[in-house]
Amino acid sequence: MLKLYYTTGTCALASHIVLEEVGADYTATELDFGKNEQNSQDYLAINPKGRMPALITERGVLTETPAILLYLAQCYPDAKLAPLDDPHALAELQSFNSYLCSTVHVLHSHKGRGHRWADEQSSYDDMKRRIPGNMLAAFKQIEQDFFKGPWVMGDTYTIADPYLFTLSGWLKSDGVDINELPKIKAHRARMNEQPAVKTVLAAETAQS
Amino acid sequence: MLKLYYTTGTCALASHIVLEEVGADYTATELDFGKNEQNSQDYLAINPKGRMPALITERGVLTETPAILLYLAQCYPDAKLAPLDDPHALAELQSFNSYLCSTVHVLHSHKGRGHRWADEQSSYDDMKRRIPGNMLAAFKQIEQDFFKGPWVMGDTYTIADPYLFTLSGWLKSDGVDINELPKIKAHRARMNEQPAVKTVLAAETAQS
Repeated sequence: MLKLYYTTGTCALASHIVLEEVGADYTATELDFGKNEQNSQDYLAINPKGRMPALITERGVLTETPAILLYLAQCYPDAKLAPLDDPHALAELQSFNSYLCSTVHVLHSHKGRGHRWADEQSSYDDMKRRIPGNMLAAFKQIEQDFFKGPWVMGDTYTIADPYLFTLSGWLKSDGVDINELPKIKAHRARMNEQPAVKTVLAAETAQS
Repeated sequence: MLKLYYTTGTCALASHIVLEEVGADYTATELDFGKNEQNSQDYLAINPKGRMPALITERGVLTETPAILLYLAQCYPDAKLAPLDDPHALAELQSFNSYLCSTVHVLHSHKGRGHRWADEQSSYDDMKRRIPGNMLAAFKQIEQDFFKGPWVMGDTYTIADPYLFTLSGWLKSDGVDINELPKIKAHRARMNEQPAVKTVLAAETAQS
């Protein structure tokens, strides 16, 4: 039995969807950022970084979305969510996911997490002004250079798709008009038709 | 024949060391950030992100350090640089590397790359003031919670070691006294004894 800790609206959604896609035996427990539960003593004993997601396995705790997604793809090979026997294709997939975590997620984080990198309110305000332009530019680059279509890696749905879907779900609140990103818009529509996505979105909404 | 594009002082060092460790047939070409060569038309045709590293393979271009490192570990399994047959152990390793790229590298980037996230000089100055404290805190957390010793993952040298070595090499210029981080200091000394590390550092110094 796997146990996912998540918070609605965070990148934990990607792991949640993949758990559902592979048919894993799992539970999902929501922590409330509003109550700062991610920094409770109990949760810091699980993930000392105080962030989402964390996946509890029989052998310990796993964190960081790209690592969790690859782990699930490896543990459930029948779901065929990653090209496990093709190192080059897998590297292209991992490169995409690494770009999402190290660049795109980080751009978004400057809206509400400026305190990680600066102390002054004027800096936070400055960072926030950059959010719509930075997010639009990053997703335009994804459309132009990395997104193969109709899924991220081409004809095959992979662990990159729930991850992209998770981050593209932040565009509206980040002030980006999805109509400027036709490939991303079509990808979101396609993802919303996936049964696993419907199940997870309903579950997260019900608990929130 | 593999071809690495790198710039001395960047995270490309990790890929460079691993290429040497696995005994790959490769060339390494340095681009000069001082001349903005990473944004030249020729290089943007290789890596539209305009960043280091990029690894040219027979099948295309790979970017993003965690992806390149895993690719090399998979292509050269005899070097035993990752637990390829143990998904949980591999996920722990990938989690560590993902934390380096998405959190630790990003902390460091706020010293000289504030223009990615803000526009005002006052914001850049604010960010710079946080560098020593942020980097020290991140590496203290690595020592306390993630570093198993004597190598990152325990008794076995893996692709996490050159990556940690690369980022810990930034501590001095980031204003952190390495003596506050005894495990990291010992790891750096151990890494500096690796023949592949000596070869690569000499090669990068010679070209710079």
